[in-house]
Amino acid sequence: MSATLAKIIDALGGALHGSPDLAIQRLAPLQSAGPADLSFLSNPKYASQLQTTQAACVIVAPALAEAALQRGACIVTDEPYLYFARLTQWWRKQHGLGYPPGVHASAVVHAEAHIHPSAHIGPLCVVEHGARIGAGTVLTSRVTVGERCVVGERCIVHSGVVIGADGFGFAPDKSRSGAWEKIEQLGAVRIGNDVEIGANTCIDRGALDDTVIEDGVKLDNLVQIGHNVHIGAHTAIAGCVGIAGSATIGRHCTVGGGAGILGHLTIADHVHISSVSTVTRSINQPGHYTGMFPIDDNASWEKNAASLKQLHKLRERVRAMEKHIELIAQKKNGPP
Amino acid sequence: MSATLAKIIDALGGALHGSPDLAIQRLAPLQSAGPADLSFLSNPKYASQLQTTQAACVIVAPALAEAALQRGACIVTDEPYLYFARLTQWWRKQHGLGYPPGVHASAVVHAEAHIHPSAHIGPLCVVEHGARIGAGTVLTSRVTVGERCVVGERCIVHSGVVIGADGFGFAPDKSRSGAWEKIEQLGAVRIGNDVEIGANTCIDRGALDDTVIEDGVKLDNLVQIGHNVHIGAHTAIAGCVGIAGSATIGRHCTVGGGAGILGHLTIADHVHISSVSTVTRSINQPGHYTGMFPIDDNASWEKNAASLKQLHKLRERVRAMEKHIELIAQKKNGPP
Amino acid sequence: MSATLAKIIDALGGALHGSPDLAIQRLAPLQSAGPADLSFLSNPKYASQLQTTQAACVIVAPALAEAALQRGACIVTDEPYLYFARLTQWWRKQHGLGYPPGVHASAVVHAEAHIHPSAHIGPLCVVEHGARIGAGTVLTSRVTVGERCVVGERCIVHSGVVIGADGFGFAPDKSRSGAWEKIEQLGAVRIGNDVEIGANTCIDRGALDDTVIEDGVKLDNLVQIGHNVHIGAHTAIAGCVGIAGSATIGRHCTVGGGAGILGHLTIADHVHISSVSTVTRSINQPGHYTGMFPIDDNASWEKNAASLKQLHKLRERVRAMEKHIELIAQKKNGPP
Repeated sequence: MSATLAKIIDALGGALHGSPDLAIQRLAPLQSAGPADLSFLSNPKYASQLQTTQAACVIVAPALAEAALQRGACIVTDEPYLYFARLTQWWRKQHGLGYPPGVHASAVVHAEAHIHPSAHIGPLCVVEHGARIGAGTVLTSRVTVGERCVVGERCIVHSGVVIGADGFGFAPDKSRSGAWEKIEQLGAVRIGNDVEIGANTCIDRGALDDTVIEDGVKLDNLVQIGHNVHIGAHTAIAGCVGIAGSATIGRHCTVGGGAGILGHLTIADHVHISSVSTVTRSINQPGHYTGMFPIDDNASWEKNAASLKQLHKLRERVRAMEKHIELIAQKKNGPP
Repeated sequence: MSATLAKIIDALGGALHGSPDLAIQRLAPLQSAGPADLSFLSNPKYASQLQTTQAACVIVAPALAEAALQRGACIVTDEPYLYFARLTQWWRKQHGLGYPPGVHASAVVHAEAHIHPSAHIGPLCVVEHGARIGAGTVLTSRVTVGERCVVGERCIVHSGVVIGADGFGFAPDKSRSGAWEKIEQLGAVRIGNDVEIGANTCIDRGALDDTVIEDGVKLDNLVQIGHNVHIGAHTAIAGCVGIAGSATIGRHCTVGGGAGILGHLTIADHVHISSVSTVTRSINQPGHYTGMFPIDDNASWEKNAASLKQLHKLRERVRAMEKHIELIAQKKNGPP
Repeated sequence: MSATLAKIIDALGGALHGSPDLAIQRLAPLQSAGPADLSFLSNPKYASQLQTTQAACVIVAPALAEAALQRGACIVTDEPYLYFARLTQWWRKQHGLGYPPGVHASAVVHAEAHIHPSAHIGPLCVVEHGARIGAGTVLTSRVTVGERCVVGERCIVHSGVVIGADGFGFAPDKSRSGAWEKIEQLGAVRIGNDVEIGANTCIDRGALDDTVIEDGVKLDNLVQIGHNVHIGAHTAIAGCVGIAGSATIGRHCTVGGGAGILGHLTIADHVHISSVSTVTRSINQPGHYTGMFPIDDNASWEKNAASLKQLHKLRERVRAMEKHIELIAQKKNGPP
């Protein structure tokens, strides 16, 4: 399949500089684009790639239009990255890719589950008693949606996802020397609209109330969401993040890959957590937070790690020296 | 469904203060409980919530009975949290929820697997040759139990769990410039009774001997248990923990979410590892252990992380100064 | 089943010291081996176990042959660990274990997927449109291979693996106050030959180009590989590792369990990353790199972590003192 630039502009807008009849065969990154490919440049720091790319046409912001024109066709738009996102969606539709409505024959859907007719329930999914799947939502394949859990509209749930397993709740029984007594998890999971959930991610059901994922949230692969967590709208969480029970996360937050958020705390809107950082207390101010051990060659790390285990003592030694020096100074300046 | 307080007391004991005819419609946390709900208070630090909750009745310890009575009905018991755990179990049974015995038609169970008649093998599970599933055990859905692996009695295994995949064992072949030669994993997995395993958790089979999970162990979601690991009875391991091969963990331990335990080491009974901490050596004493980079605003972190990479040198500078100061002091106090 | 030492030597080579008629009933570690078991010793630091093991025969390197002979039969070979690896493979075949070619009746394989006749597609796998599975490759069970993704020859893909879910790509839409617009993931995943992929691991499809895993790569369980990652041949990655989008990793690298690699960076060949360490910048030199907070008893950790948050200030205080001391020294040595 190919599409002319005219057809693309017609569908998505933007100002075309170049021949509308140019046929595009593929979308490609600047570096690997060939002479029939359409590419994009959103981050100005890669502007130098304009000079070397073989792309037929490049999507750019107005500030880079002149540079792009010097090498060939371009589409100028205020938000090249957003334009590119929409282009990928349009491109996919043009190729006839997509998920048809209906329930795959191999899926196991409970008679009392509620599946919207426009939803796609892929192969080998399990949808349990009382679960609800909204309009246009896609469970790709091998997804579990547990009893009474709700997935909103236009969601995409990738393979291996488990929605509504039991939260991790146990009470120690002293009379049986600390054996754990299960707390049945009587809540469910409620997921809003336009949520995407990555492969093998788990969202536990609430203990009594529900676990809640608001509209527009994006979860990457292998994310763990504990029971009674509440994630605000349009928050994006990268792969391998773990969020412990009853944490409340604001709207428009981002959480980097491998980060952790401890339980029973609150994170404000517009908070950005770096990868591999652990949130151990509530964060009330928007901003960017980090806690990550810097990597080093192993020999240097060993020395620094050993010193770190003595850091508090080092601080006390510094304090002692400061006092000592002050004393010396006082004696010097004092009466003879 | 609803249940009177009389019926609850009759089933679970406890001292009721209030009308036995009060009908309870839901179990709920103090904060979100409505006027027909039963709640509980186990942590005294939340005692102030007694004044604001709308719950019809609250389960409390004797020490808080008076405060609870001032606002309405209460059930007094020595262990409110344990009582609440048993209440959730009773409540779930009253609602007719549970897993009926039998093998779901969509499960793939090998003819030479041994499934106890009271066990529940849910939709789209795979149980391989020679595997054994004990009495009352539940594989919820989409669970794999590999060949010759054994799951004891009354276990709950959540969706996506993989028991008995190959451990990660390879020998480098110098004659093929370091290509990896597979070490076939000939052991199995043996899981005791009353074990619960969270969604998408993996327990690898042993290389030669078996991987062993003792009675009453609780594993949360997305936990990785390497080959030949041995976990002692009643140890609880939170989500996203990784335990490397041949680690031996004692009884009644707890491991916080995202923590890691390196291979071939031993952890004593009653050891508690904080979230996101990595155990790099054997721990022989019970106690509480932590190793986690504290989170900070990103700018502060950047400065401290840069300093950390110089920490060993800083320590040497402090040592040098201490010597210098000592020298100054000696000169001062020495003979003129 | 049992096998005589003669039969083993015949199949795998090595110099036998002892009776060729000795019947071996099991392969076992030195510690737990019984008097009919064959064991091996590759790491000299465990040489003392030779004195206590009950094994019928031990595989050893020439340097340890004498010590081994003092206790009974042994097989001498230059590379005992490699010999043992091959022995496990031979042993498994003798036991008739293995994966027969063919597609299990419960697997959902698209009519336009390409499955080599010698491949094994286990129970409840999903293989989508245009996917290719090479000769001798095994998808054990409950594996997803997404559309157009390619798995080479002689690969082993364990239960729960997801190959070809969408990468995590979204553009913020300012006109909708930062809602995320999906970037359709139009690339695929290409996996070479002799690759092994552990349970519940995820490998995302590329955004435009493909995600690539070269020959001989070994991935453990619960590993996350982001879109457009490229992993060089014979690199081994342990459990729970996360690799963010567009990272390029060299050949013959090892990555320890729980480590993280941030996106858009490059790692040279023969780089070894310690467990739980995060790679935040490109690494151009082979070597061993680490960044991990050392574990300690919780009370010590609390003090050191608090000091760490003041480390930059501590460094400035040290600098100030050094200047001060220098000044004192100058005054002393200066003109009166």
